Amino acid sequence: MNKDKSHGYDGLLIVIEGTDGSGKSTQVNMLSEYIKNRCYGCTVSEWKTSRLISGVINEAKEKNLLNTTTFSLLYAADYTDRLENEIIPALKAGFVVLMDRYIYTAYVRDSVRGHDINWVKNLYSFAPKPDLVFYLNVAPETLIKRLIAKNGALDYFESGRDIGLSTDIYNSFEIYQKRCLEEYKKLEKEYNFIEIDGKKPKEEIHLIIKEKVSKLLDLKT
Amino acid sequence: MNKDKSHGYDGLLIVIEGTDGSGKSTQVNMLSEYIKNRCYGCTVSEWKTSRLISGVINEAKEKNLLNTTTFSLLYAADYTDRLENEIIPALKAGFVVLMDRYIYTAYVRDSVRGHDINWVKNLYSFAPKPDLVFYLNVAPETLIKRLIAKNGALDYFESGRDIGLSTDIYNSFEIYQKRCLEEYKKLEKEYNFIEIDGKKPKEEIHLIIKEKVSKLLDLKT
Repeated sequence: MNKDKSHGYDGLLIVIEGTDGSGKSTQVNMLSEYIKNRCYGCTVSEWKTSRLISGVINEAKEKNLLNTTTFSLLYAADYTDRLENEIIPALKAGFVVLMDRYIYTAYVRDSVRGHDINWVKNLYSFAPKPDLVFYLNVAPETLIKRLIAKNGALDYFESGRDIGLSTDIYNSFEIYQKRCLEEYKKLEKEYNFIEIDGKKPKEEIHLIIKEKVSKLLDLKT
Repeated sequence: MNKDKSHGYDGLLIVIEGTDGSGKSTQVNMLSEYIKNRCYGCTVSEWKTSRLISGVINEAKEKNLLNTTTFSLLYAADYTDRLENEIIPALKAGFVVLMDRYIYTAYVRDSVRGHDINWVKNLYSFAPKPDLVFYLNVAPETLIKRLIAKNGALDYFESGRDIGLSTDIYNSFEIYQKRCLEEYKKLEKEYNFIEIDGKKPKEEIHLIIKEKVSKLLDLKT
């Protein structure tokens, strides 16, 4: 992947990254509304939603059946399927494509699970470079409160329980999420993330995102 | 992957490679019988047979739904799942593991489909190095006769129809298989393939394979 090179399609590729509970989906929805109101075509593609492969990932997760390398490869297959069938066609058609998580999610999760980052980067070496990457940064203490309020419990994988960090789920969550934040930190500069404090009110975050996106849209008209 | 380094497990990893119709399965069965008769534990692992993932690959193939990169990643996930759950446990237990196709099948198929061979090699960089690789070499003209006699028709993917080589299936098969043979040729020296003329009678091929395997088994006792 040539990191300095634009994807070259007519559309825009905009990524919102962050851990579970960081407020990504809320921002994706608000941004999607804004873009549609400005009369641009807009489509959203979420992590792990391809037609065939997401089912297998969910089945394997439920049963905790697969090892981390197999999961990495399946996530990459899921991404590639969406890339070919959703993302690239929409970019070619001039749409704004909003990504709820992107390849950086894989970089972070796989690194924390002990994979060589270069192995993971190679998996995704054909991925188009986004026009903007927003990264919602939220500390684990805040994430815990939000996720318990939202789901009543912490997720097995989002707590890194599959890699045996601690038998206590809260402790495991904290260690796991801290490691994820460290990995995001490493990627931040390399991939020009626009870091946003995810503890800010959602309207305030939306304003920051909207301003940057708005500039890009103006350039297109 | 360090190509010069043995896998380090107690068991033996023996591969039989070759295109569809080259006689691999027959040889795997004969060799498995021989090894069991010598009172060694022996297990066979076939390409694309993992519990969860092979189903998705078959479903996608039937509908011709996925692009070649997604297929590559799914095949790699299938291999990794079998590696973790079948191959490595058997090697650790001192079994002889017979592989009906190995990573070289992916190298060949993906190269013919236009993937950078280094990208593919990276996918499989954690694969244990086999103790022996037998490669059954058969010309496309012979393969066509065998496959039609066996299945009554030529397979869509084994004829490279997914990459649009020719609208005529026989022509497509011949072009595709020739390209596969060229790719196998490139790998032969690099990975120390023991090339066997697949047109020889099956008993004669078995004798060649048995002799080599026998020497390795003798070293183990």
